[in-house]
Amino acid sequence: MSSAWLLPEHIADVLPSEARRIEELRRGLLDMARSYGFELVMPPLLEYLESLLSGTGHALDLQTFKLIDQLSGRTLGVRADTTPQVARIDAHLLNRAGVTRLCYCGPVLHTRPAGPRATREPLQFGAEIYGHAGLEADLEVVELALDGLGAAGVETPVLDLGDARILRALLQGVERGRHEELAAALARKDAAALTALTDGLAEPTARALRQLAQLYGGPEVLEAARAVLPDLPGIRAALDDLAWLARHVQRTHVQVRLGFDLGDVGTHAYYSGARFAIYGAGASDSLVRGGRYDEVGAVFGRNRPAVGFSLDLKALAERTASVPARSAVRAPWGEAQTLREAVRSLRRQGETVLCVLPGHEHEGQEFDCDRELVAVDGQWVLRAL
Amino acid sequence: MSSAWLLPEHIADVLPSEARRIEELRRGLLDMARSYGFELVMPPLLEYLESLLSGTGHALDLQTFKLIDQLSGRTLGVRADTTPQVARIDAHLLNRAGVTRLCYCGPVLHTRPAGPRATREPLQFGAEIYGHAGLEADLEVVELALDGLGAAGVETPVLDLGDARILRALLQGVERGRHEELAAALARKDAAALTALTDGLAEPTARALRQLAQLYGGPEVLEAARAVLPDLPGIRAALDDLAWLARHVQRTHVQVRLGFDLGDVGTHAYYSGARFAIYGAGASDSLVRGGRYDEVGAVFGRNRPAVGFSLDLKALAERTASVPARSAVRAPWGEAQTLREAVRSLRRQGETVLCVLPGHEHEGQEFDCDRELVAVDGQWVLRAL
Repeated sequence: MSSAWLLPEHIADVLPSEARRIEELRRGLLDMARSYGFELVMPPLLEYLESLLSGTGHALDLQTFKLIDQLSGRTLGVRADTTPQVARIDAHLLNRAGVTRLCYCGPVLHTRPAGPRATREPLQFGAEIYGHAGLEADLEVVELALDGLGAAGVETPVLDLGDARILRALLQGVERGRHEELAAALARKDAAALTALTDGLAEPTARALRQLAQLYGGPEVLEAARAVLPDLPGIRAALDDLAWLARHVQRTHVQVRLGFDLGDVGTHAYYSGARFAIYGAGASDSLVRGGRYDEVGAVFGRNRPAVGFSLDLKALAERTASVPARSAVRAPWGEAQTLREAVRSLRRQGETVLCVLPGHEHEGQEFDCDRELVAVDGQWVLRAL
Repeated sequence: MSSAWLLPEHIADVLPSEARRIEELRRGLLDMARSYGFELVMPPLLEYLESLLSGTGHALDLQTFKLIDQLSGRTLGVRADTTPQVARIDAHLLNRAGVTRLCYCGPVLHTRPAGPRATREPLQFGAEIYGHAGLEADLEVVELALDGLGAAGVETPVLDLGDARILRALLQGVERGRHEELAAALARKDAAALTALTDGLAEPTARALRQLAQLYGGPEVLEAARAVLPDLPGIRAALDDLAWLARHVQRTHVQVRLGFDLGDVGTHAYYSGARFAIYGAGASDSLVRGGRYDEVGAVFGRNRPAVGFSLDLKALAERTASVPARSAVRAPWGEAQTLREAVRSLRRQGETVLCVLPGHEHEGQEFDCDRELVAVDGQWVLRAL
């Protein structure tokens, strides 16, 4: 049984100091979302596979673990992404006419890791606004994400903006079978793959796709795009919207550095408008990914405008500074009613009180005990250690 | 696609008001555990099946969903119980010599529901003490469980006590194949099944097993047990320990009603000593189950004394009163810097501020907005609604 404690690759225990940090981030983000008026929901880990993958695309299918339901004999999936589930909740269960703001926080599972150091069990936090097609909703979720990261200690974030409509407009008339590969090659800025994949396309389209791969950098990218991309309505709307978003974000979040990557349409096939990613300063992996995905609810019978973001709390905990452990009080074990009452009273005041179990008086404690409870003249008092 | 929103049986979304209640209970329990010095850990949802089921018994195997790991080709299980995982963490990763207190909170999945109304996705909270074989540790986890339920609003709990050593002592010499069925029949107090299952056993054993099924009720049960059960060392130790625990719990928790059920050895095959369950007043399903399971860590190479409990936060939320939603502030949407700053400042103070998105001014809000932010003489001020 010597290997009974080995864990699968890209699966790990979260031990106390990291778990404390994650819990602290979790509460901070949920409270921040609540202060914006986002209501918490908890979709299940398991759903019928066809519901879970409705309208989401091939990539999510590959990432999803499949199981057989003993009660129905049908195939279940363990969620690999929570966003489509929250769209389902909005579409069917809440059935509200107006704007709905929802947030969630829970694990997802991936069949394969997203990268060489990635976990297969991210702890996904996310927030979504349904029912408003205007840019004010995009701005609100970007600001919530930035404020959440700010509270977590990410001080000089980079906000990277793009828009799914640009590529969509260029792909009009290109056979659907090539879309996914083209999007992936653009996101990687893989010139060789792009040349191969645009082979046989009309020359203006092929050229625009190759140019799109170069359209990344600072705010000057928007003007460059207007100059080199065809003047299609989807592209014009996207560039106008990105300029509006950038202007408004910069007003309230002056510390944020803005970047644009117009060829990167994001990891999710369901994005339909502006999309964004947020990076810590100097980091190459994004902390947050989000955007507009107005069409996700359609498969559930209600095509509502939707915009939101998600992040992995485990990755965020790894890349932000941990707070020191709170100090604790060491108390003896004893049956005296006065001692028991003194311990309970300290705990009620929010103190951590470790009762040293009999026989363990000389062990080190994992908590940093800086005071101890001692009897002085029949009174239990705290004494510095 | 009309059925895309149907969920599997015994699987449900948790909608805002219930989710808020669960989150509140979650924080209360984690903070309570922390005040006792329990450190949070987060074991993974997925493990190799053989690790997950090490030393746990057949019932947990049946409850566990199985998957194939694409990276290793090996069979994985989705945890159906977190306790054995935390024992693994204690045994191998922390590798501490002394007392270790650990707690956890996360979902588990069951292939089949535990009862007709049970969820297949409980949200399990639990706490465990490793490294102390004395009753002081049993008492500490019972008190933590009672304090946690008290904070959740369970006012007159019933603490039901038993001990796995009683049945173990009686089953010495009975073929192992019958143990599980005998334990189940005893837990159900199924006299007919007991008569059938004890057929062929030595008469003193058969009689003691049938009598064990009758040994439930108030504190008088301990004396009755001493009178009718054989005077074996395991039985004597168990009865002495239960009397000690009952006496000590009653001293600090006078509101708790004590009950005993000596034939019920608990749902987990791994219990090895005193076990307990806590019920809400008048309820037939337990809210908390716990006990001593000194042998669980052995399969991981470290046979440490262990005692702990777990509960399902979803069940606890259902059976305790919810708190009313916090009131919120309604604010107009606008680009004015002074408005944006007023909104951010209120949010930083912990207020929920809903910015009404343009065009949605006349919609009802899900939050109970009792104030609104209005401009008076160029100042943004709160006005009652």
